[in-house]
Amino acid sequence: MDLGVIVSDLPTEKDFIRVFSDVFRLKNKPILSGSEFDDCAALRLDSFAQNLSAESLTFSTDSVRESTDFPSGMTLWQKGWMAAAVNLSDLAAMGSKPIAFLFSAGLPRGFTLENAEELARGIQECVSFFGAEVIGGDTEFNDELTITGTVIGITENKNLILRKNARPGDLLCATGFPGSAGVALSVLLNEINIRVEAGESVSDSTADSTADSTSDSTAVSNSISDSGLDSISVSDSFLKNLTEPFPRIFEGMMLAKSGAVNSMIDTSDGLASSVYELSALSGVFFEIDEQSLPQDGEALEILSNHLKNNQYKQNDQNETNFTDEQIAAQARDLLIHEALYTGGDYELLFTIPAGKLSLVEELFKKFNENAISDAISDTASRFEGLSSTGKSGRYPCKFTVIGKAIAEKENVIVRQAGLNSQRQPLLKIGYDSFKKYI
Amino acid sequence: MDLGVIVSDLPTEKDFIRVFSDVFRLKNKPILSGSEFDDCAALRLDSFAQNLSAESLTFSTDSVRESTDFPSGMTLWQKGWMAAAVNLSDLAAMGSKPIAFLFSAGLPRGFTLENAEELARGIQECVSFFGAEVIGGDTEFNDELTITGTVIGITENKNLILRKNARPGDLLCATGFPGSAGVALSVLLNEINIRVEAGESVSDSTADSTADSTSDSTAVSNSISDSGLDSISVSDSFLKNLTEPFPRIFEGMMLAKSGAVNSMIDTSDGLASSVYELSALSGVFFEIDEQSLPQDGEALEILSNHLKNNQYKQNDQNETNFTDEQIAAQARDLLIHEALYTGGDYELLFTIPAGKLSLVEELFKKFNENAISDAISDTASRFEGLSSTGKSGRYPCKFTVIGKAIAEKENVIVRQAGLNSQRQPLLKIGYDSFKKYI
Repeated sequence: MDLGVIVSDLPTEKDFIRVFSDVFRLKNKPILSGSEFDDCAALRLDSFAQNLSAESLTFSTDSVRESTDFPSGMTLWQKGWMAAAVNLSDLAAMGSKPIAFLFSAGLPRGFTLENAEELARGIQECVSFFGAEVIGGDTEFNDELTITGTVIGITENKNLILRKNARPGDLLCATGFPGSAGVALSVLLNEINIRVEAGESVSDSTADSTADSTSDSTAVSNSISDSGLDSISVSDSFLKNLTEPFPRIFEGMMLAKSGAVNSMIDTSDGLASSVYELSALSGVFFEIDEQSLPQDGEALEILSNHLKNNQYKQNDQNETNFTDEQIAAQARDLLIHEALYTGGDYELLFTIPAGKLSLVEELFKKFNENAISDAISDTASRFEGLSSTGKSGRYPCKFTVIGKAIAEKENVIVRQAGLNSQRQPLLKIGYDSFKKYI
Repeated sequence: MDLGVIVSDLPTEKDFIRVFSDVFRLKNKPILSGSEFDDCAALRLDSFAQNLSAESLTFSTDSVRESTDFPSGMTLWQKGWMAAAVNLSDLAAMGSKPIAFLFSAGLPRGFTLENAEELARGIQECVSFFGAEVIGGDTEFNDELTITGTVIGITENKNLILRKNARPGDLLCATGFPGSAGVALSVLLNEINIRVEAGESVSDSTADSTADSTSDSTAVSNSISDSGLDSISVSDSFLKNLTEPFPRIFEGMMLAKSGAVNSMIDTSDGLASSVYELSALSGVFFEIDEQSLPQDGEALEILSNHLKNNQYKQNDQNETNFTDEQIAAQARDLLIHEALYTGGDYELLFTIPAGKLSLVEELFKKFNENAISDAISDTASRFEGLSSTGKSGRYPCKFTVIGKAIAEKENVIVRQAGLNSQRQPLLKIGYDSFKKYI
């Protein structure tokens, strides 16, 4: 008959709910009740839908948690942002417009109300940046920080893009620079010893990044510079490829509206995994041309420096064996590997009929020109305020044809070997939450 | 550059998704895509909504997990059922009709595909019993079984019931037998030593439950019978008050439609906690008359036997001090305490103007008469198939006036002391996930 209640000054569930409610204070009048008052939120249909017979709601749910999704060094703001972003990315892949977001937060021992506020601000800024509202939540104690989000969107039925409709002859296209998140993860897991530069830097940075750099930097690890090796500098904005995933909501909506796209998926589990998904559901097979994969300049530089240092150590600190050109080629290979088989990028992978290519190219050109002022007009002001994410590295949104549907009955990677190209089976490897724990 | 992939025969994320998809195979054609194919589910608006300008969607999210929500002995089917039920109960409290359910399941090491199927069946049977469909999910590895659900419902705007609209003069009403789940929890936490009777028994059972009972029983603990004390038998169906919460969806919809209800909430955190919620949001205060609280016969019997055994032990196994009448009074007191301050009941607490009482009584009378065949017509057949929950103990749904709005500026419990009644402040105590872990 124990009540299980111990009086203390630690925050209660209601305290946390109050903090969350303050951050998520609803601005949208058509929401009849937000969940700061009731266990349910209520959202008037006519506040977001125009036509019952022509529209569908879209739903997705996804979880993130401390031990598996938050590399060390992430702020609570970033953890909140990520919890929302990974859900929004699923909507982006259907070309759907986000309306509302709910979350269930498991908070660990010692979590303060200030912590809760920072976490909530990360969620709030991501959700509102992409045009939706946080309408409900739930919180309880947990052994580690765990956030499960659910996102609700709306799409015109005729614009709904599924994975299963890839067609023979389709071109395979991707946004962004695949592999960047994977390289950032290696950095944060200390597989690459780096120091992080404070302040923003563009993702194609070519700044000299040796140990005697005079920029304001944070030494994440001194092990390399102590040993006389070059330390590898990584910009804050590069790490955000991993820690502040940027769901391609506006790009997905644009593509859905274009009528040019047959199938679409996000790349959160890696390019190869996503190709296998489209392939399995559509009954169409693809080749990826590795030469066509766009590569981020800073990612290449990080990998090159890492390779040089490794060689230096392996050779007992004598001269390296490889020329700069050879090192660069190895770095490109490593980055291709990251792009194909590592998750975390949250870019879009989609297929279009070859005849629609110029239309889609034109759309992306216009989209990027207007990215801030027009194409995402009602959220333009949010770009300015979003100092901790910023727009650098996110726009312009790179659009690349990386492969095509093929006649063979397997998915293929076209590799460059000198002047010749080799066709190899694409490995069916990607992020799998269960495999990591065997 | 570690891929983090280890080849093994253990199930992968996709294996679990396949099992879940098989269980949740969508029957509803208007669902354009279930999430076995895409990260998002898509649901045609016209498949569930009639009138854009007159209806609202309702949403709620809630988590359950092994260490805090599943007392030992619960089956995976029950854990799945509970994960859905706790979410549906939030909709019930708004009088909303459930449409769809999504969940994110964290599965622990060693979880098999057969385990996943049993869990999924529990979710599926609860969701479909109450007229909705499982449209999406997500699964990943976790240290312990954790299920976060999100439920989506629909309500006519004019029928939406909120917590904040309780009015002076309102009667305070409750469904069910508050405290039953609390007593069941004490049993499962071994605070009461019992043996569980196999098979169904009605909740107002008055069967003799001494150690020499001949019924087919499972000895959960022999400590009492070994010591010569009466062992306390508890029916399977009584424990289901806790382990298979039965959201009052149909009752909530009926109440919403009646126009008689001013405010409503579920009692998942205990009666007192729910009264404080209604009070805080409505600015109206209440008294609960403890004499009016309905008490479950089996709950009283369990508590009486527990009290007798405790006395026996305390008195060094001599005769007891108290008469049967005194023991019965103590048991009633204990059960009142459980009803007010312990969670887990998932019944409805609502307020109505006094003038609407006969209308609501009549509605419940008809509802109960028709509970299986008419009032929930399209789900009637599900009652028959639902052997592991069954309808015993759930219907008829008890409806009781347990108190009223008062002029005082605090919430009050009216206690019976002999022939006199005493007014005492209602304690602001209830289930709080955070308090338990201080």
